[in-house]
Amino acid sequence: MGIWMNAKETAARVRAQAAEEAARLRAEGVVPKVAALLVEGDPASAYYANAKKKLAASLGIEFVLAELPRETAEAELVGLVSAWSRDESVHGIMVELPLPGHVSAAAVAAAIDPLKDVDGVTPANKLAVMTGEAGLYPATPQSCILLLKAYGYSLEGKNVTLVGRGQTVGLPLFHMLQREQATVTVCHSRTADLSRHVKQADIVIAAVGRPGLLTADMFHAGSVVVDAGINEAEEGRVVGDVDAEAIHTAAAVSPVPGGVGTLTTALLFVNAIRAIGLQQEARRDVETKGGARA
Amino acid sequence: MGIWMNAKETAARVRAQAAEEAARLRAEGVVPKVAALLVEGDPASAYYANAKKKLAASLGIEFVLAELPRETAEAELVGLVSAWSRDESVHGIMVELPLPGHVSAAAVAAAIDPLKDVDGVTPANKLAVMTGEAGLYPATPQSCILLLKAYGYSLEGKNVTLVGRGQTVGLPLFHMLQREQATVTVCHSRTADLSRHVKQADIVIAAVGRPGLLTADMFHAGSVVVDAGINEAEEGRVVGDVDAEAIHTAAAVSPVPGGVGTLTTALLFVNAIRAIGLQQEARRDVETKGGARA
Repeated sequence: MGIWMNAKETAARVRAQAAEEAARLRAEGVVPKVAALLVEGDPASAYYANAKKKLAASLGIEFVLAELPRETAEAELVGLVSAWSRDESVHGIMVELPLPGHVSAAAVAAAIDPLKDVDGVTPANKLAVMTGEAGLYPATPQSCILLLKAYGYSLEGKNVTLVGRGQTVGLPLFHMLQREQATVTVCHSRTADLSRHVKQADIVIAAVGRPGLLTADMFHAGSVVVDAGINEAEEGRVVGDVDAEAIHTAAAVSPVPGGVGTLTTALLFVNAIRAIGLQQEARRDVETKGGARA
Repeated sequence: MGIWMNAKETAARVRAQAAEEAARLRAEGVVPKVAALLVEGDPASAYYANAKKKLAASLGIEFVLAELPRETAEAELVGLVSAWSRDESVHGIMVELPLPGHVSAAAVAAAIDPLKDVDGVTPANKLAVMTGEAGLYPATPQSCILLLKAYGYSLEGKNVTLVGRGQTVGLPLFHMLQREQATVTVCHSRTADLSRHVKQADIVIAAVGRPGLLTADMFHAGSVVVDAGINEAEEGRVVGDVDAEAIHTAAAVSPVPGGVGTLTTALLFVNAIRAIGLQQEARRDVETKGGARA
């Protein structure tokens, strides 16, 4: 019987740090402020957006939630996000997905100032994740790594099997894991023998979006399993990509809910605080160069 | 005893295609032209630049080689590359590396128009490799995949062990391999048991830059081995990352020289031809939009 890697304590610690940083910034006259765009029509998005709003309030971070009707034109959404990008009082920008079919998520993302891009969705931050340069990295991959470290699992030299290769979790996570010095195998729907790749790994991370894809028989007594899947099951229950029975065969499993997702929301606001630092740095750089030129 | 995956025939075919395309473009009134920047002081770079010049001439592609003294300021190099980016008669831009210590390669790369970036070094093309969007991908990773396909080895569902995680070959190649539906494991200097990862793979690709890192005992009778390493050995000889003895244990090995590198140079000019297509498309897009506005 393995242990459940519950994120409760780690999330509480992360939130406390964010609140402390927010208080420090307020004392310096900076009121941290995040703006989120929500297009009506997706109940889950609305639920998450409101959860973020509540968390922001508890951290001392202002949160502007713009709820726009489903038929709003792309140009209007891009215009709103661009205005936030220019507005110095807004430090972080989030766009709740999915957007309606007539709106290009890429076009909206491109309007976000990379220094305010707390979800890490702009081209500049996607590239930064790949090259390892400074930037705002997406919160879910950060959450997976932080949860492992919180439970004392180091990544260096470990064999990690990552199941999933999506643009938001899988691929950024691959780059972050290999920079932690892990040897990473990326599995996906066309992998010939998923079970073998999972069995051989020290650490397994699932980020596919298929309930119960990884079953108990795939693990061994040393397997450390992080479940980054979020799937809606019957009666509104949320389940991960890993079957709950895995707790009987693996050394450690992160629960869904109560694992990666719990930490992710807190890390969004850590990104927002980090964004303020990056924006202050950028302004200092401009001032220095301006001064040198004068 | 395995077979040597010689690139001679494939390279000849690729060159013939490039020459045919160049002739077609000339017939349409477009003279394909590539400009290369070479900063003096590195004999190997000078050698490669001149080899490209010769190849370009044989393909019917104009080649401007700007050789600048070692002490040239970064601003001047950036200025030259920017001028090529604006010059409509220049279709492809190459910067020979390494550059001297006082010059930032990233700053010079950023001055290249992504549509002329035949080496795939601009941020836009690095990102395109990661996301799979259209763009100009680096030639060496393309070469590895093309050589495998030329010998009838499909990548779909195969286990590929990629040794090396550099920004120019390893990481772009990882993304390209997984889009070919391979299950890829990326090994590096901190990998715990390189030998095991190599032994388990259907296909092994080495891009590290350490002569003889992969030895014959690491392979099995079914191993297909692509050597993308280029290392200078004694007496000016060039050797790869795979020990030549591997031919006795593996099913197929690409030689160095005569393998990946041979194809890479030809593929640079395929990229140049492709660049012309992308530039023509971009101009048509601008005209269409301009027309709609008028």
